[in-house]
Amino acid sequence: MTDKKLPTLNCDMGESFGNWTLGLDAEVMPFVDCANIACGYHASDPHVMRRTVALAVQHGVRIGAHPGYPDLIGFGRRSMACSAAEVEDMMLYQVGALAGICRAEGAELSYIKPHGAMYNDIAANPELLEGAMRAVRAFDARLPIVVMATAMPEPFRELATSMGVTLWFETFADRAYEPNGHLASRRLQGAVHHDQSTIVAQAIALAKGDALTARDCSSLRLPCDTLCVHGDNPESIAAVRAIREAFKVLEIA
Amino acid sequence: MTDKKLPTLNCDMGESFGNWTLGLDAEVMPFVDCANIACGYHASDPHVMRRTVALAVQHGVRIGAHPGYPDLIGFGRRSMACSAAEVEDMMLYQVGALAGICRAEGAELSYIKPHGAMYNDIAANPELLEGAMRAVRAFDARLPIVVMATAMPEPFRELATSMGVTLWFETFADRAYEPNGHLASRRLQGAVHHDQSTIVAQAIALAKGDALTARDCSSLRLPCDTLCVHGDNPESIAAVRAIREAFKVLEIA
Amino acid sequence: MTDKKLPTLNCDMGESFGNWTLGLDAEVMPFVDCANIACGYHASDPHVMRRTVALAVQHGVRIGAHPGYPDLIGFGRRSMACSAAEVEDMMLYQVGALAGICRAEGAELSYIKPHGAMYNDIAANPELLEGAMRAVRAFDARLPIVVMATAMPEPFRELATSMGVTLWFETFADRAYEPNGHLASRRLQGAVHHDQSTIVAQAIALAKGDALTARDCSSLRLPCDTLCVHGDNPESIAAVRAIREAFKVLEIA
Amino acid sequence: MTDKKLPTLNCDMGESFGNWTLGLDAEVMPFVDCANIACGYHASDPHVMRRTVALAVQHGVRIGAHPGYPDLIGFGRRSMACSAAEVEDMMLYQVGALAGICRAEGAELSYIKPHGAMYNDIAANPELLEGAMRAVRAFDARLPIVVMATAMPEPFRELATSMGVTLWFETFADRAYEPNGHLASRRLQGAVHHDQSTIVAQAIALAKGDALTARDCSSLRLPCDTLCVHGDNPESIAAVRAIREAFKVLEIA
Repeated sequence: MTDKKLPTLNCDMGESFGNWTLGLDAEVMPFVDCANIACGYHASDPHVMRRTVALAVQHGVRIGAHPGYPDLIGFGRRSMACSAAEVEDMMLYQVGALAGICRAEGAELSYIKPHGAMYNDIAANPELLEGAMRAVRAFDARLPIVVMATAMPEPFRELATSMGVTLWFETFADRAYEPNGHLASRRLQGAVHHDQSTIVAQAIALAKGDALTARDCSSLRLPCDTLCVHGDNPESIAAVRAIREAFKVLEIA
Repeated sequence: MTDKKLPTLNCDMGESFGNWTLGLDAEVMPFVDCANIACGYHASDPHVMRRTVALAVQHGVRIGAHPGYPDLIGFGRRSMACSAAEVEDMMLYQVGALAGICRAEGAELSYIKPHGAMYNDIAANPELLEGAMRAVRAFDARLPIVVMATAMPEPFRELATSMGVTLWFETFADRAYEPNGHLASRRLQGAVHHDQSTIVAQAIALAKGDALTARDCSSLRLPCDTLCVHGDNPESIAAVRAIREAFKVLEIA
Repeated sequence: MTDKKLPTLNCDMGESFGNWTLGLDAEVMPFVDCANIACGYHASDPHVMRRTVALAVQHGVRIGAHPGYPDLIGFGRRSMACSAAEVEDMMLYQVGALAGICRAEGAELSYIKPHGAMYNDIAANPELLEGAMRAVRAFDARLPIVVMATAMPEPFRELATSMGVTLWFETFADRAYEPNGHLASRRLQGAVHHDQSTIVAQAIALAKGDALTARDCSSLRLPCDTLCVHGDNPESIAAVRAIREAFKVLEIA
Repeated sequence: MTDKKLPTLNCDMGESFGNWTLGLDAEVMPFVDCANIACGYHASDPHVMRRTVALAVQHGVRIGAHPGYPDLIGFGRRSMACSAAEVEDMMLYQVGALAGICRAEGAELSYIKPHGAMYNDIAANPELLEGAMRAVRAFDARLPIVVMATAMPEPFRELATSMGVTLWFETFADRAYEPNGHLASRRLQGAVHHDQSTIVAQAIALAKGDALTARDCSSLRLPCDTLCVHGDNPESIAAVRAIREAFKVLEIA
């Protein structure tokens, strides 16, 4: 392999809420590099956040703020018609809240990754992206912001440079892609890979910078700084472990 | 006057919420030293917080976090049976959130003052006070925490010293006091002073360290680092201005 | 005038929330026929609802449920990507809640009017309209549902007939219209009429079924079962009174 | 056995929320008589309520409204200092909301059971009980209200009679009792029975009107119209089935 750096593995965490538990955080934490911790708008609460930060610290995992739209019932997955200024302020609020919790565990934030519909809206709407970048720059310009990888990353890179923030392009090993590098809608057949070997193969391709095959059979090359993995159930955790093993081999090679 | 430092004037601010406006923040801001800004649990939202922080910065007013119980409908005035750990975490969350908003306006927090029922519960329950102090210490031990003045301040001072945090005792110029230094319940007749000369006289007595007359006609001396004033209506703002004028005379004397 | 029935005057009410007051409900109530009472998702709470229902009862004003998206910070004005089933269920919940409050005041619901972004989304998306109609039909098929008037009302009427629900088309006296009968965006100059004589003239034209002049100067005729008026401030209430006076003249004529 | 009617088995249901699942509703529903369905303040949302009502209808199980304090993070288990009027209004709101959802499934409410801290506060505070009874009476005086059984039920019965509402006293088969008939605090050792035979024996004693042994070894006789059972996990469901079997034997006897 070339000296291209392997992507980190990031995973949504801290998605429990009050009396409700979601996600196998303790099981998946040992196998990831980065924990995206929900900040109370779409999931999590101060106590869940505290426990999750402590768990990340225990495993030496980097902590990322995972802000979302204010929609607990919809888990932040329903797009809301928010202005760029609204996105900016709600990101500052949530990122600050998690940073406050971090102080009680001697931890610090390492990056910011918007969640769900906010993440998708930011990928589709440059105004919202700029609002999000203003929030990151104001909070701590050294923190990278995670955005969805795209086949045309240059406009994103230019905006990031002009705003003075760092981008991390994110890809998914278990999702089919459209030719433009967007994720195929979950409603489409074949949009989500369930077969572990398919998932690992896609992870390796993304890590090596090899081309993927998009849904229309065209070839697609995506920037990949970090790979999103899942701790929802034993199958997804097994996939994370398999990707981790595969990456070890790549590192040695 | 002796070299006793005059108490600061602090005022609850940023209590608007979404489409709803509350308080004459712009009118009262020029006359206070410290703005207690609500953090979204009992009032305020990220956009109100941003505007209020900007207003405080514009007037050179110190910004304090004003965390409360998660009870918008009750405005944080209904006691909730929360544990010390819950109070600690919800303070860290809210204080952090406001600190995040502050970064976008080039501002910093100067102190922390719990709100409403949380403030009262902390005054009455040493376990909760300790939880609140743990939050302050973890967030930034240099930030004073505002607590209700009491006729017996020593136990509070000892706890603060042992926890490594700074206390600001707070008094009220427009409220009658019980002999133990607690505020007389608003439900009692005469609990709230409406006459401006009475309010100013009580402010001066508190500032000079003179004794007040408690509800049972006993004499009461209270520590007073900061005096709570109100920006709810033109009358309360007139009282703030009158106190400010009276304090200028004290400073010269 | 012909025997065309005059439109009712309806007004959004009960938009206070907890400690926050909004709208001059007591001042405008005497002059309207129908009170659209918010149901706690975008504004109001059980206590505000109770007071507002009591006020409507006192003035013999018909009570309508005014359900919205679950977005207090955005006052239900931000579109949310909800499914038809979600709209259906959240309408049933909110309408039921207000009906529960009504029972304590010996009142009953008379109609249902979706609020804000939900109202707009329903006007634009037949699937959501059908979801809303399913809610109305299930709750009480005798209750009319208020929808935005349109230059092409037939598809709406056909859907209503097939669903077995009654439509009330709503118009606005103080808003400019697009040629298709949609409201001109508030962001456009001239979108909102502030001159009382313009407002009254438009109210009379709508009541008589006369044509309006749309933003592009084309002629526009709208069905009008009910006219939305506002109790936000003294000016809007003066306009309501003027419309009411004008309608009295029409009735006599 | 005498002709004493066996108590019904009631179970808290519909405690999922948004993306979060809680409780094995589908597994326990076949074995209970009464489903206490959360109403969105401490758990549940319009969609969970709809699914749960449909499930109850499918199994011919009676539906009860299960209103609680507005505290999702605390699951309605933290006491809040609400007035009787506040409890009354928030009950009307929640009961009405569930009644609205019921209409879409052709169902009706059969009773009302306050949840968690509200349930406990009502048992301890006659003013709150009266507020709750006013809500029930206004909503539908034919609906019984479930209250915690007590060794001294007469004052409760008298209040219910004077208010014109019906009481159902509720007992627990898996909880130890204080001599006054209150539940032993969960924090005390032995407060919760985990052994199935102990649970079934206590259920039988309660059903037959036999005396229990309180924590201080005194004898305790409790009125029991309905017995609370749990669908949290396979063990609790096994206990429900065992109680059901035991009751069948009692019925035949």
